[in-house]
Amino acid sequence: MIVRPTLLLDSRRVERNIETMARKVQGEAVRWRPHMKTHQSAQIAELFRHRGVEAITVSSLSMAKYFADHGWRDILVAFPVNLLERELLVELASCVHLGLLVDSPLPLSQLASSLESPVDLWIKIDVGYRRAGLSWDDEKGVLSLAEEIMQRPCFRFRGFLTHGGQTYSAGSPERIREIFRENLDRMNSLKRAFSLRFPRVGVEISVGDTPGCRLAEGWRGVDEVRPGNFVFYDLQQLSLGVCSQEEIALAVACPVASLYPERSQGLLYGGAVHLSKDTFLDAQGRRLYGWVVPLREEGWGRVEEGGGLLSLSQEHGLFELTPPLAASLRAGGLAAVLPAHSCLAVSALGAYQTLDGRAVERLREA
Amino acid sequence: MIVRPTLLLDSRRVERNIETMARKVQGEAVRWRPHMKTHQSAQIAELFRHRGVEAITVSSLSMAKYFADHGWRDILVAFPVNLLERELLVELASCVHLGLLVDSPLPLSQLASSLESPVDLWIKIDVGYRRAGLSWDDEKGVLSLAEEIMQRPCFRFRGFLTHGGQTYSAGSPERIREIFRENLDRMNSLKRAFSLRFPRVGVEISVGDTPGCRLAEGWRGVDEVRPGNFVFYDLQQLSLGVCSQEEIALAVACPVASLYPERSQGLLYGGAVHLSKDTFLDAQGRRLYGWVVPLREEGWGRVEEGGGLLSLSQEHGLFELTPPLAASLRAGGLAAVLPAHSCLAVSALGAYQTLDGRAVERLREA
Repeated sequence: MIVRPTLLLDSRRVERNIETMARKVQGEAVRWRPHMKTHQSAQIAELFRHRGVEAITVSSLSMAKYFADHGWRDILVAFPVNLLERELLVELASCVHLGLLVDSPLPLSQLASSLESPVDLWIKIDVGYRRAGLSWDDEKGVLSLAEEIMQRPCFRFRGFLTHGGQTYSAGSPERIREIFRENLDRMNSLKRAFSLRFPRVGVEISVGDTPGCRLAEGWRGVDEVRPGNFVFYDLQQLSLGVCSQEEIALAVACPVASLYPERSQGLLYGGAVHLSKDTFLDAQGRRLYGWVVPLREEGWGRVEEGGGLLSLSQEHGLFELTPPLAASLRAGGLAAVLPAHSCLAVSALGAYQTLDGRAVERLREA
Repeated sequence: MIVRPTLLLDSRRVERNIETMARKVQGEAVRWRPHMKTHQSAQIAELFRHRGVEAITVSSLSMAKYFADHGWRDILVAFPVNLLERELLVELASCVHLGLLVDSPLPLSQLASSLESPVDLWIKIDVGYRRAGLSWDDEKGVLSLAEEIMQRPCFRFRGFLTHGGQTYSAGSPERIREIFRENLDRMNSLKRAFSLRFPRVGVEISVGDTPGCRLAEGWRGVDEVRPGNFVFYDLQQLSLGVCSQEEIALAVACPVASLYPERSQGLLYGGAVHLSKDTFLDAQGRRLYGWVVPLREEGWGRVEEGGGLLSLSQEHGLFELTPPLAASLRAGGLAAVLPAHSCLAVSALGAYQTLDGRAVERLREA
C-alpha cells in the first residue's frame, strides 16, 4: 500500500518505449549505448540486455560502479573525467571496458600516470549547447587534443562525442530535427578534418539527446547514440512534441493532504524533495512543476483529467483543483503526478514500484 | 578526502546561529520549537537540547519517527495530517507527545477512530501565503473546526498555527517586519474571537518562518515559534537581507570538472541531484542556482571571490568564471557552492561532514 510519495512505473509502457527506440536505432544501423542515468536501475537495464545491448552510458563513476557490479562490461561515463575519483577510476578500468570524456589536455598526464589499464577516450564536443566540451569550430584545439591522446599508449582514442541539448529549448518538432541535423553537420565536419589529418586512424561520432534521437531521421555519419530519457519520457518531452502522453511511463503517487475548493486548489504531500524543482511549459505557456492526475488501480489518468502543479516547497505541492480533479480526488486518498523531468524525480525518490505493486531496485548513492 | 559533491558544515557558524536565535527567542519569552527539516540530523538536534529545547517541529511522519528514535518526546508534524500513514501515526502517538495539523473537519473522525493515544491538534491557518490552511478571515469555519476538535476526547486542542511564507517574497527587511506584524495581527484576531466564544479554553499561537523570526521584534500574542532555516541560512536568506554571508553555515563541495576561459565559464561535477533546482535572485536580479566560491582548508571563500551558478542539469553545474575564480580554481580541484536553499541541498545529498572532516549523521529515507 502506498502511504507516502512513491515512484510508479508503468512497465508495459517502459517496454514499449524501449521497443520503439530499438526499432529506430536498428533502422539507422548505429550502435546503441543507452543512457542509464534516467532509471539508474539494474532491473530496467536488463530489458536492454535482452535486446542485445552490450554498451551503456552513465553520468558518474558511482553509476558506472553500480552497473559494473551488475555485470555490464562496456561502460561510458558521459561527463568530463573527475580526476579526484582516481581510486574508483583505476578499479573500474581494471574490470570493464571503460570510456571517459575529456574536453581539455589538462587531465591527460595525471590520468595516464594513475591508470593501470587502458581506457577509451572520447573528446567532448560542444555543438552549441554551451555546457561542456571543446567548441565544434575550434578545429585546431580538437585535433591537437586528439593527437595528444593518441600519443599515449594507455588511451584508445575513440572519437567525438556530443550532447546537443539545444533540442530541449526548441519550439517545435521540426526545429528539433533542424537542430539535430545541424549538430550532425558540425560533428561530421570535425570527423572530416580529423580524417584528412590522420587518414589511417579510425574516428567515431557519438550523439545523445532523446528529442533528436526520437524525431530526427537519417543519422548521417553517426556511429553511436546515447538517448536516456525515452525510457520514461515526461512533461518536458510531451510539451516539446517528442512523445505522446500514452508513452509517459513514470509518475509519482502522492497522498492528497487537503482540498481547498474555495480557491480551486489542493495540497499534495509531495514537494521539491520528491519531485525536484524542475519545470515544463504547459499548453498555455505557464511554468509548472508537474501535472496532477487521478490515480486508479489500472494506472494514472489522462492530462485532460488533471491540473497543474503550481508550486513546490520541501514537502508541499500546491495544485490547481480543476473540475475533473475535484470530481475524482479526495483528501486522504492518492493522486499521481506526471513529473516535469523524470530523470530528476527518479533521483529524488528511492525505489520504484510497478503499477501491479512489484518493487524495482535501483542505485542509491551513499 | 572529498572526491564528489559533499555537504560541508561550518560547525562554529551553526553554533553561533543557534546561539543568536536562542537569545532572540529568550528575549521574546516564547516557547522555542525549532524546525528540524532543515538539517534532519539528530547530532545537530543535540545542540538545541543542550540549550534546553524539548519540543521540536518536523515536516513528515518519517522525520518524526527518526527524531523519536533519537529520544525526542515532544514532536509537532507541521504538515496537514496524512491519514494514509495511520500505522506510523498510531505508533508515534503511543510513544511521544505528538502534535498534528488539520485544516478541515474531514480527517477528524477517521483520525479519532484510528488513534489509541491522544494527540495535540493545531488548526493550520492561512495568513495570506495561500499554501495550506483555513483562511485567517474565515472565522466561522475556524471556530467550528475548533469546536469539533474539542468535542473529541482523543484530541487536545492546542490552538492556531501558521507559516507566513509571504516573507520569502518580501522586497526588504522592513517589508518582512511589516508582513510578520500583519500576520501576527491576523492570528491574534482569531485568538480573540476564539476566547470570546470559548472563554474558559486555552488557545495558543504558533508561528514559523526564519525571515520573520530573525528580523521582527515584539512577537505580540505568540506562544511558540518554529524557525528552521536559520541553522544554516543560504543565499535566499542573504538576498532577502535576513542574514550576513558570515552566517551561512552550509556549502556543497564540488569537483571542478573543466574550465572554459574562452567563454568565461566553468563546469562543476555538481548538478540538480546534488543542489536541487531552487534559485535565488542575485544583486543584479539574475535568477541563479547558487554561488561558486573558492574552497580552502579553513573554509569557503567570500561571495566577492565567486561567480554565479548559471544552470544545472542532472550532474552538471555551469558557472561564471569571474576573474577571482579564474585565479583560484583549477580543473581537477574542488570548489564550494553556496546553495540557493540549504534545506533542499541537505535533502538532495547524503551525510554531511564538517570543515575539519568529521562525519555528521542524518536521516536517510528508505
